Amino acid sequence: MSLSLAASTRSLAAGTVFERLERVRVKAPRIHAITNAVAQSFTANVLLALGAVPSMTLAKEEVAGFAASADALLVNLGTLDEARREAIPLAMEAAQAAGRPVGLDPVFVDRSPLRCAFAQELLRFKPDLVRLNEPEMGAMFADRAGVEDLIATGTVFAVTGQEDKIESSGEDFRLLNGHPLMARVTATGCAGGAVLTAFMSVEEDTALAAACGLSVFNIAGEMAAEQAGGPGTLVPELLDALYAMSLGDIEARLKTT
Amino acid sequence: MSLSLAASTRSLAAGTVFERLERVRVKAPRIHAITNAVAQSFTANVLLALGAVPSMTLAKEEVAGFAASADALLVNLGTLDEARREAIPLAMEAAQAAGRPVGLDPVFVDRSPLRCAFAQELLRFKPDLVRLNEPEMGAMFADRAGVEDLIATGTVFAVTGQEDKIESSGEDFRLLNGHPLMARVTATGCAGGAVLTAFMSVEEDTALAAACGLSVFNIAGEMAAEQAGGPGTLVPELLDALYAMSLGDIEARLKTT
Amino acid sequence: MSLSLAASTRSLAAGTVFERLERVRVKAPRIHAITNAVAQSFTANVLLALGAVPSMTLAKEEVAGFAASADALLVNLGTLDEARREAIPLAMEAAQAAGRPVGLDPVFVDRSPLRCAFAQELLRFKPDLVRLNEPEMGAMFADRAGVEDLIATGTVFAVTGQEDKIESSGEDFRLLNGHPLMARVTATGCAGGAVLTAFMSVEEDTALAAACGLSVFNIAGEMAAEQAGGPGTLVPELLDALYAMSLGDIEARLKTT
Repeated sequence: MSLSLAASTRSLAAGTVFERLERVRVKAPRIHAITNAVAQSFTANVLLALGAVPSMTLAKEEVAGFAASADALLVNLGTLDEARREAIPLAMEAAQAAGRPVGLDPVFVDRSPLRCAFAQELLRFKPDLVRLNEPEMGAMFADRAGVEDLIATGTVFAVTGQEDKIESSGEDFRLLNGHPLMARVTATGCAGGAVLTAFMSVEEDTALAAACGLSVFNIAGEMAAEQAGGPGTLVPELLDALYAMSLGDIEARLKTT
Repeated sequence: MSLSLAASTRSLAAGTVFERLERVRVKAPRIHAITNAVAQSFTANVLLALGAVPSMTLAKEEVAGFAASADALLVNLGTLDEARREAIPLAMEAAQAAGRPVGLDPVFVDRSPLRCAFAQELLRFKPDLVRLNEPEMGAMFADRAGVEDLIATGTVFAVTGQEDKIESSGEDFRLLNGHPLMARVTATGCAGGAVLTAFMSVEEDTALAAACGLSVFNIAGEMAAEQAGGPGTLVPELLDALYAMSLGDIEARLKTT
Repeated sequence: MSLSLAASTRSLAAGTVFERLERVRVKAPRIHAITNAVAQSFTANVLLALGAVPSMTLAKEEVAGFAASADALLVNLGTLDEARREAIPLAMEAAQAAGRPVGLDPVFVDRSPLRCAFAQELLRFKPDLVRLNEPEMGAMFADRAGVEDLIATGTVFAVTGQEDKIESSGEDFRLLNGHPLMARVTATGCAGGAVLTAFMSVEEDTALAAACGLSVFNIAGEMAAEQAGGPGTLVPELLDALYAMSLGDIEARLKTT
């Protein structure tokens, strides 16, 4: 699906991004992340390096309580086993009832009708943020009207790709940070979704939270790629960059259009 | 729950710690670790770097045999799915029947009544070691009498925190090693529990084994923190430090009161 | 079981190995890997560093479709939970029907009769490659005749150990690369099995594919061991070495007999 280009795009200042990063570091929000088996460990380490606290239980007896008491909820569909299919609606309902921000990452819905149907059903919980790429968006929405309907009710879309776009009922953000080597590490996108969710716990303007979170994660990837000899050393360097990122790092690198 | 301070504390010599570490390296004990999904890979790598051999199956048809033939068993409650709830009592019973030392790490019992009740039931297997922090201890035991009763029957408690305490029917150990950056990496506590368990397979005095294991793991964390640029590079450096730790490293760093 | 030494062994040129590596990098084959919980993340990162694309779903509604549309299938028995026991035959059947190459890694069949019986049943799908060590081979096959029967129908065996042997209906390969430090990192063997499978998607001669893939992975391990301070830093260095490996690296290190 091709996206209409907004007439104008919202600007983003380095100081704004850094101030939200500092809020995360000070608040140390707990993010309950229901994510895929491959991404769990890396996602937990990304959240900890950022200054947030991960929790990840899936047990149906516990998950609603963990989600309702967390500062935000991330739901990633990369693994769709029975435990997760049972846990996800319980967690989303509990988070919604408790007024917690919710991010949804419908991984690979373009490759599996099962996931796609499951993801479409989850839209009834009106997630604050949906993070996906264009093929996934095309699979989930038959036409642009479906996207617009959700946006009209307040959902924000973070559409990742060569250029990242944050689409909302207001002006869109267009973001240009990141590094190709990040795609050579498993679960970077999934972990990035957890970062966006963490920023949603400290910033009520979901589109702004998503723009700040995505920029911080992609700038960390750029900083890491400069130090790394390949995708292996990229991982520890990315975590170190998230942990140590300064206002100067953001000022030197933030790229929007 | 506040812990009574023992009238005197047991001393620990660097040579004693290193000698037990060498026993692990020579014996290469197999540690069967039932641990949470996020911690599995890191725990396996910590055991291998230490010189032990991990096994981690959960299948109910296999787990008793794996636990009974292992040199020690670790049970960590960080993930409590149905497979683990079924596997854990089978493994603990088999290990107990075979005379294998057993360590229990009741992660997050303070956050979930389900885990807490499950952990309390597991005490019937009389684990040799229970590793927890003070909030977890407060959740599991209504009062100090419950702790004392277990200690009287031979269970040792490793209570981690700013200062680590090993409580047993004899004198207590008080241990002061470690580095704050370790808390910014997921599953360091869980992996540390596996190290304690490995030391229990080479030293029958459980309190001494726990004191040696905890000191070795926390000294590795200190050595790593000096080399690392943040929590990302801490992980490989910690594994390298465990692998290469010498008597001199322990002599230079061991801190007890 | 002792293996008969082939009268002559097949030679392997560095240029041949590098040309197959380049095919993987250009084709970016998708490898569907059903592997154990401990190995998933490392295996995915190894495939990405190599230039392949991992997929790992186990859901019974999806797994046949993912396997049939992949460029090759890897089945590793390191975790044998109910989900995997259900998914594996579905995936193998679908891959076979679609003409996709299939690699089987029967981890620990020598330690568990359950796994052994399950692995023996899977031979009915006539996997193109079986990767195992000698104790696992001894557990699966009562005598040499069982191995020879499979070889006669086209299955290739990659038998890893001090020296690696690739056994097929033609001449055998004998391979001597690798480094002892690789055994101190969890799931290196499992991840290596994924590399062999990736090479099978670009080279129809399964024995040659296995020889090239094993050599590339073990050379990466050697290159990493020279840079690493221990098993912790070995992991990122191994991924970087896979990513950057040149013809010169292979020429300088390839060792066969």
